[in-house]
Parts: sequence; C-alpha cells; structure tokens
Amino acid sequence: MTHKIVLLPGDGIGPEVAAAARAALEAVAAEHALSLAFSSHDFGGCAIDAHGDPFPEETKSACLSADAVFLGAVGGPKWDGGGPRPEAGLLALRTELGTFANLRPITLFEGLEALSPLKPERVAGTDLLIVRELTGGIYFGNRQEGDENATDECAYSRGEVERIARIAFEAARGRDGRVTSVDKANVLATSRLWRKTVIALRDAEFPDVELDHVLVDAMAMKLIERPSAFDVILTENMFGDILSDEASVIAGSIGLAPSASLGLTHGGLFEPIHGSAPDIAGQGKANPIGAILSAAMLLRHALGEEAAAATIERAVSKCLADGVNTGDVGGSATTQEVAQAVCERIRAA
Amino acid sequence: MTHKIVLLPGDGIGPEVAAAARAALEAVAAEHALSLAFSSHDFGGCAIDAHGDPFPEETKSACLSADAVFLGAVGGPKWDGGGPRPEAGLLALRTELGTFANLRPITLFEGLEALSPLKPERVAGTDLLIVRELTGGIYFGNRQEGDENATDECAYSRGEVERIARIAFEAARGRDGRVTSVDKANVLATSRLWRKTVIALRDAEFPDVELDHVLVDAMAMKLIERPSAFDVILTENMFGDILSDEASVIAGSIGLAPSASLGLTHGGLFEPIHGSAPDIAGQGKANPIGAILSAAMLLRHALGEEAAAATIERAVSKCLADGVNTGDVGGSATTQEVAQAVCERIRAA
Ligand SMILES: CC(C)[C@H](C(=O)O)[C@@H](O)C(=O)O
Ligand SMILES: CC(C)[C@H](C(=O)O)[C@@H](O)C(=O)O
Repeated sequence: MTHKIVLLPGDGIGPEVAAAARAALEAVAAEHALSLAFSSHDFGGCAIDAHGDPFPEETKSACLSADAVFLGAVGGPKWDGGGPRPEAGLLALRTELGTFANLRPITLFEGLEALSPLKPERVAGTDLLIVRELTGGIYFGNRQEGDENATDECAYSRGEVERIARIAFEAARGRDGRVTSVDKANVLATSRLWRKTVIALRDAEFPDVELDHVLVDAMAMKLIERPSAFDVILTENMFGDILSDEASVIAGSIGLAPSASLGLTHGGLFEPIHGSAPDIAGQGKANPIGAILSAAMLLRHALGEEAAAATIERAVSKCLADGVNTGDVGGSATTQEVAQAVCERIRAA
Repeated sequence: MTHKIVLLPGDGIGPEVAAAARAALEAVAAEHALSLAFSSHDFGGCAIDAHGDPFPEETKSACLSADAVFLGAVGGPKWDGGGPRPEAGLLALRTELGTFANLRPITLFEGLEALSPLKPERVAGTDLLIVRELTGGIYFGNRQEGDENATDECAYSRGEVERIARIAFEAARGRDGRVTSVDKANVLATSRLWRKTVIALRDAEFPDVELDHVLVDAMAMKLIERPSAFDVILTENMFGDILSDEASVIAGSIGLAPSASLGLTHGGLFEPIHGSAPDIAGQGKANPIGAILSAAMLLRHALGEEAAAATIERAVSKCLADGVNTGDVGGSATTQEVAQAVCERIRAA
C-alpha cells in the first residue's frame, strides 16, 4: 500500500525545511519498507502570487485525497499590505481537513539544556504536551472589519469542547495521567462553558485522569516558573496559540518544535511550529528539526507507523547529541547538513 | 489640601498588603507634609458575603468621590461556585472609574537577579512598561452564557485604541522612545483596526517615537528570550492580561509588581498585580512590595506627588538590597516586618 503525502512547502524557510522532512521520510521509508508517494502543491503566499488564492482548488483537492499533509510554513511581510492573506489559507486548510486537535509536544532534549532561556534547575524534566483546540473560538467566529469599529466573536459549543477534551484525556492516559485545563472562566462565558464541559467529561469518562484548572494569565507565569510541573495542557484556540509559542522557547529553540493537527475525517496536517522566517529564507540557516519531528508525528498519527516514527526520533536525538546543529542551537551546520546527518543516522539505525 | 484615598482591602492577602501600602503612605506623608485621609470599604468577595454584591453602592460612591483608589486583591475559590463573582466587581470598578489605561512597569531589582527563572544574561537590563487597554475588548463585549453554546464578543473602536496608544507613546517619550504594539492582525479584525490606528497616530502625533508590531504568539516568546529588548509594550485587554503576568515573573516574583489604572475623569486605581492568594492569607507570608510600589504610583499619577513617590521607591530598593524579604523572594521576614522596614527607610530618607 502506497501512502499519499501532500507537501505544502509554502513561504520563506518553508521549502527548505519541507525538503528536509521529505528526505527524512524517504530515508525511513527505505529502512522500514514503506511506500510513500509525494506531491507538492502551492499554498500560502506563493499561491497568492501564482493563483491569487492562498489555498487554490487544485491544492485543496490534493489535500482532501491525501493520507497526510505536510506544511512547511506560510506568510511574510510581502503579503501584509491588504489583499488576500496566506494565513487565511491556513485557517481554511484546517477547516477543510477538520483538524480540531493541535498537538504540540515540548520536551527538553538531552545536551540542549544550555539553550533554554530558563535556568537549568527550572527547566529540567520538562516534558509536556499542549493540546490546542484548532478549528473554533475567536479564529472562526463572525468578524466585522472596519476603520472605525471592529469586532471578533469567540464561540464554542459543548460538542467542540468535548471532542478536544477527549483527545487531551486520552493522551494523558498514555503519559502521566494529568490534564491541566486553561481558561479565563472568571471573565469569559466561553471559558465557563469550557470548564463545565471538561469537568463533566472527566467525571463521566475519565475518572482515572487527574484534572485541574488554571486561568490563562496564571498559566503564562507557571509555564516559566516550573514547566516540569505539567503533563497535558488543554486549552482553546487563541490561548493555545500564545501558550504553545511561550512553551516552545522554554525548551530551547522554536526551530526544534513539531506539531500535529488531527481530526476524525482525514489523516491530518503536520508542521513545525516555527514561522516562515523570511529574514533567513534561502540561506540554509533554518533549523529542520521541527519539520523532521513533524514528519515523525505524521508517520505515527496519520499512517500508524510507530516504529518508523521512533526511528526518526532516535536519529534526531543522536544528531543533537552529536552536536550537528544549526546556528539557532549553537551549531554551524546548514539546514541540509543537519537533514543529511539525520538521514545517515536513520540508515545506521 | 487633604487627599481622599479609598482603600479596598478585598479578599485573601488583600487586607495584609493594603495595610502595608497604607503604612508606607502614612510614613511618606509625614516626611513630605502631605495630608492623606483614608477610608476603607467592602469590595470583592467580602462584599458579596456582607452585602450580596461585590461592588456595593456605598463603595461605588466612595470610589467616585475619592482622589485615588487603592485595591488589595479580590477573588478566591469560595466565590467560584456560581452566584455573583468578585471579579465582576473589579470590572465594574474599572468601568465606573473609566480607567482605560493599565500601566505595569517591570524592572529587575538590583540584588534580586537570582530570583528570575531566566538566566542572568537573559534578564539583565530588563526595564519595560506594559500599557494594557483595560476597559474594552473581550472583557466588556456582549456575552452569551450557556451549557450548550456560549459566545464572547471582542469589540474595539478607533477612539478606544487611539486613547490608549497615546498613553503608550507619551510614556515612551519619557523613557527610551520605543513602543512595541502587540496584536494578532493576521487573524483578528480588531487587531487590524488596532494596528492601523496605532500607525496613524504615531505618524500624526508621535513621529519621534519608534514603533514596531509583534504578533501576540511571537511576543510570548520574545518576552522570555530577551525581555531587555523592549521599552514600552502596548496591547489590548486580553493579551495584556496574559503578557503582563508572564512579564512579571521574569523579574523575579509577582509579589514585587505594581500597577496603575488610569483614566481621564478620576484619580485612578492602584493595585499590586498579584492575586488574592487564599492559600497564604492571614499568615503574614504575602509580599507587600507590589502593594507598596502601587502606593508610590498612586502618589505619582493620582496626586502628582513625584518626590514622595520617589521616596517610597528608594526605600523599597534599599529594603530589597538590605535583604529584608518575604519567603517568595528568598527571605524570612513577615509581611509586616517588610512593611516596617520600608517605613523606617522612608523616615531615614
Ligand atoms: C499563522 C497563524 C494564523 C497561526 C495561528 O495563529 O494559528 C500560527 O501562529 C500557528 O500557531 O499555527
Ligand atoms: C481578576 C481578573 C478579572 C483580572 C483581569 O483579568 O483583568 C486580573 O487578572 C488582572 O489582570 O487584573
């Protein structure tokens, strides 16, 4: 059986890190006798340039019929001046694929403790998973644009909260059995619905999972004070956007952090959590590790190839331990050199 | 002339830190020949218990006719179970006083570098001011409560953005001349209005101030990576809530951080940014420094008593340098002992 993988290299450093992810997937496919078929499609700013649309029909139908979608990065100042936005393509892609669950694991890699802006004793032992709701909330509510008045609506239904909370509780069962739900229940109606729903679901279906609640402002503090205190962090779309970026820098470089966006109807969307970094695009400076680890998540979550995923993850750990690193992680290797080093360690596995 | 100061001690550790702030104000009043008249009023959870209302009429009229309002802290798990919320009183108080501008200075105190969860080289030189919009956005939009569906609306008008941006630009002129405006303009309509308005105001009235824009998720990272890179950070209500708590922990303890909430029609509201910390209430463990520095901001912003404000701030710096500290800052002094130590240094000034 051949797995169809759609690559959306996107903008800025997107194409460089997507090439690295593809190389890692091809290397591991050879080792594990997997058959992967890749096709690349325009998406984001480059698709606006080529087709006037960040998410052209041709790209959409490719994504909808793929077993998994891999995205490099989208956006850049070039498309900030009015007109269609690359980010609108990303939001539409998430909707089309129904990827309501964004998983962002944050782990401290051995040997890279020095990278963290936090003191070693603070960051030691950090191993958390952020579960972010990705297709609801203020990202998708009614909006009113205007130069005099503007509004954005944040809406959640019980069903939307339940399905994302279920993902978090299930993930916690395979980890340390603890979920911290983040909201702003002292102010927001949607947060009160969120909290009630999460509590009811825990009581009904996951009595074995420990649950606590932290307000989003307090969480922004606790995440820095003692990141190792957390196991699974469950939150809504906007808070998750902020907290997962904050958490990623705690572990060292945002260039190392992968993500998986999952739904019930398609294989899912996999992307490093860093942006398109137009300032370093095309220079071989981008860290491909976040993208390569996203490829591992693709193997695990979309294709069910746990062994192949683990092979990539071990190769990445070795590569980091061997000190083959891009500049953001204190090394001097290029994007391609790091990708090659990972591929060699996949083959040697 | 006698200045009327309303004290709202509130809940949890609120009364302890409010007493400390009052002691510092009385000490400095004696030294600087100021006449201050204090009155205390029920507010928050204790007002719910006594009057069934977190912000009773009697408290409201006292606040409206005061020259300045000092708040300890409100809230606690006791009032989390449905029924009126202490936080609703706080939001109503902000509205009544028209305090649209929340100023949260974050500075690293000499001798306390070791407290920060960040590495010393990361946090060195941090001296920033967060200017948070406080009476608009999703905190005050239409809300629909519900167990099946809930919504919160975030609304901003050009005028609301202009007046808070003006505060930030003016503050920057008295500091390092740089404003970083934080929004989520790649997704939210209110953020696009925000960004446009801020740019137009800068161009029209503050061409001498440097302005840049950072997305809120990126800001959550940058604030940890290099807090010293920022001068004035300008943002909307919800983002400001999250980022200012994040920033406060960078400087060591949230117990040290003061805030001022200012409007055009009243003297303003002054409060430490920490919460009511019910777990340590009544034990003499609360750090009174955030409250005492808020009292200094009260003297400066509400009463125009710059010299008296500076006297308090110098006394606090000395006290910290002398190592008279509560437990959160690595010391063993009680709330009252720290307050007393500050008062002695005010008198010795
Ligand atoms: C590009 C942007 C729309 C996106 C988001 O806010 O979701 C990004 O920040 C992310 O976290 O994937
Ligand atoms: C208590 C709460 C309503 C309040 C807020 O969110 O504004 C607090 O967190 C603050 O920052 O002053």
